[in-house]
Amino acid sequence: MNIAEQVLNIGKRARTASAAMAKASTDQKNRALRAIAQLVRQQSAMLKAANAEDLERARLNGLEPALLDRLALSDKAIETMAEGLEQIAQLPDPIGEMTDFKNRPSGILVGKMRVPLGVVGIIYEARPNVTVDAAGLCIKSGNATILRGGSEALRCNNALAKLVAQGLEAAGLPADAVIVIDTTDRAAVGTLITMAEYVDVIVPRGGKGLIERISKEARVPVIKHLDGICHVFIDEFADADKAVAIADNAKTHRYGTCNTMETLLVHSAHAPDTLAKLVEIYGNKQVELRGCQRTLARFPKLLAATEEDWSTEYLAPVLSIKLIDSLDEAISHINHFGSHHTDVIVTENHSNAMRFIREVDSASVMINASSRFADGFEYGLGAEIGISTDKIHARGPVGLEGLTSQKYVVFGHGEVRQ
Amino acid sequence: MNIAEQVLNIGKRARTASAAMAKASTDQKNRALRAIAQLVRQQSAMLKAANAEDLERARLNGLEPALLDRLALSDKAIETMAEGLEQIAQLPDPIGEMTDFKNRPSGILVGKMRVPLGVVGIIYEARPNVTVDAAGLCIKSGNATILRGGSEALRCNNALAKLVAQGLEAAGLPADAVIVIDTTDRAAVGTLITMAEYVDVIVPRGGKGLIERISKEARVPVIKHLDGICHVFIDEFADADKAVAIADNAKTHRYGTCNTMETLLVHSAHAPDTLAKLVEIYGNKQVELRGCQRTLARFPKLLAATEEDWSTEYLAPVLSIKLIDSLDEAISHINHFGSHHTDVIVTENHSNAMRFIREVDSASVMINASSRFADGFEYGLGAEIGISTDKIHARGPVGLEGLTSQKYVVFGHGEVRQ
Repeated sequence: MNIAEQVLNIGKRARTASAAMAKASTDQKNRALRAIAQLVRQQSAMLKAANAEDLERARLNGLEPALLDRLALSDKAIETMAEGLEQIAQLPDPIGEMTDFKNRPSGILVGKMRVPLGVVGIIYEARPNVTVDAAGLCIKSGNATILRGGSEALRCNNALAKLVAQGLEAAGLPADAVIVIDTTDRAAVGTLITMAEYVDVIVPRGGKGLIERISKEARVPVIKHLDGICHVFIDEFADADKAVAIADNAKTHRYGTCNTMETLLVHSAHAPDTLAKLVEIYGNKQVELRGCQRTLARFPKLLAATEEDWSTEYLAPVLSIKLIDSLDEAISHINHFGSHHTDVIVTENHSNAMRFIREVDSASVMINASSRFADGFEYGLGAEIGISTDKIHARGPVGLEGLTSQKYVVFGHGEVRQ
Repeated sequence: MNIAEQVLNIGKRARTASAAMAKASTDQKNRALRAIAQLVRQQSAMLKAANAEDLERARLNGLEPALLDRLALSDKAIETMAEGLEQIAQLPDPIGEMTDFKNRPSGILVGKMRVPLGVVGIIYEARPNVTVDAAGLCIKSGNATILRGGSEALRCNNALAKLVAQGLEAAGLPADAVIVIDTTDRAAVGTLITMAEYVDVIVPRGGKGLIERISKEARVPVIKHLDGICHVFIDEFADADKAVAIADNAKTHRYGTCNTMETLLVHSAHAPDTLAKLVEIYGNKQVELRGCQRTLARFPKLLAATEEDWSTEYLAPVLSIKLIDSLDEAISHINHFGSHHTDVIVTENHSNAMRFIREVDSASVMINASSRFADGFEYGLGAEIGISTDKIHARGPVGLEGLTSQKYVVFGHGEVRQ
């Protein structure tokens, strides 16, 4: 079999398994999750041995230290994986939930039932923990899943796949509900993202380049986000203390995450005091500041921001700053330069707050809170498989619900249409 | 400007208008809808004159009588258009609705707000009423829309577009919120369905060929259904009277609609009586019946169904019939041969009913009701822009809600992430 045939065959197996997963009971799914957690703990030596082989080979191939770091599977990482599965087991099962029932004049009762999407394809980089997290979310949401991890993690992923299969079977579920593609051939991805008869949605996780390529070539719907160019806007009516705390946290809590602020918009009324305080704080934390012309006029030591800065996701201790004169200017700057991920207004003015959250066209809009809260755990979704900046289907952090769909159910008593 | 540039320019204008539409008040949108309804009534003579030109040219070009029929704009059709707009004005406005608020341990309050998708592209055949229906739904849901109707209806669509623009402006909304592409060049569609920066979703309405072509070439999400291969399953525990009434209505109420039954599955226990009654009823109504081998053994006058029949949408007085022995057989037949549109079980057995609606993977699943109820009006959506058999985003009849998205809103009090 060539690669395309192999992947099509995997698709067929996943599609078959998805029917069994769709009707699995909550108890069965939770038993599988707990069994996998136990196996991951019990077999930690085996997992670490497989991971050591991956690391050895990756080192020989000259993988960057940061990527080696992500690839490494420590005892702590293994325990976190197992706990993650147990947490997913504790989440409410969304499948089969029926809502929104309404009696219609014809006599029928119309409502909706939540059901799995079917088969979810997940493409990610060399991070073994994603294998288990993604498998756990897909099992709980009644989906079958096909996992394609970075080739550097192949041995460890295959070892994890065996444990997942064992756990599924222990709960009476098909081992094919979670299939790891065990080839490093890149052609496999091409088939995975185009076999619409076997895959219902693709979730790519990784760098912008990977996601752009997948979105461009996929013939299957993709849940994705490309950038997190997040803004905090300090409104004219902001509380200065809240503004300082939020703008500090949104930038400096972690530099490399997608919900980190990249541009700070400041109403000119706050330039003398609030912004001055922030410039000092950022300076102490070695954050490189790039200001607009008006910002530079007030803080001449800053670097000058170029037009490109307004649409750059630094993922680093760098921040662009712009002074503006109105809420309208803030909204139009964000909608124009932002990436529709997460944007914040700091204000005590109710009307401005409500206009901001309605008119800023982003997956998450916040009033008086740090952009760093845009996250599946913080939102109470329990876990997330990714964040979507698209508007179709799931938007924002995608948890179990984003891996489901709703169908209409009609309860009749023999009604026919007149 | 070449066609691609013209359409890109239209996209740009629609994108700009969408920002104004997203913040339009309910009252503004309703005033626009009522103003358009009034203009359509007032200008009926002008509309009929434009339509007469379209009809004249279509006749000269040899358009089929059935299509001429759809193209024709009668006084009744004009009144129906106007009433449709007034009904949409009466529907609740989904935009800005906030739901699902939860306090999180961090102190933030997280909920969701319903917002428009942005720009909706609609591609349809030569039916002028779709121009007004689609414009109405997009206006109410706060979207801008780009309409591309069948070229045979060009004059009438342009005349309608002028009235829509006037109505929008009378309510203080941008005329560009509804743009009719006024060229018959087919290249326009190619640009429309690939300009992802200006169009958020495409809704194709028309024949299977048109929809397949658009789905294949689109680089923008598509809300669509290709087929309606709908089933009624008469379970072992069906009430015979309900079974006869539903199977009769599902096939013969209208032959050409997507929610019409195309295959009747009958538990063998119902072959002697219920099916015999139905064979007589269908015979009296000149419905051509094509049976499986077991059906033929009992009703030798029927035609033999071929393998192809099980996956054919007849859209005609033709029905395939299969005798089976279990619920499992019914579910697997439907999931294998159906089109995931609408499927019905007739049964008095609760467990069988619940298994059917959970395990049949279709946009609408019904217990003891005719498949003909799968419709936006019958479901209480008020109106529908189409029916989706996809699982991503909207599924089943798509009304105002399907033209919206939900974003996360976070209400904080100065919270930062620890």
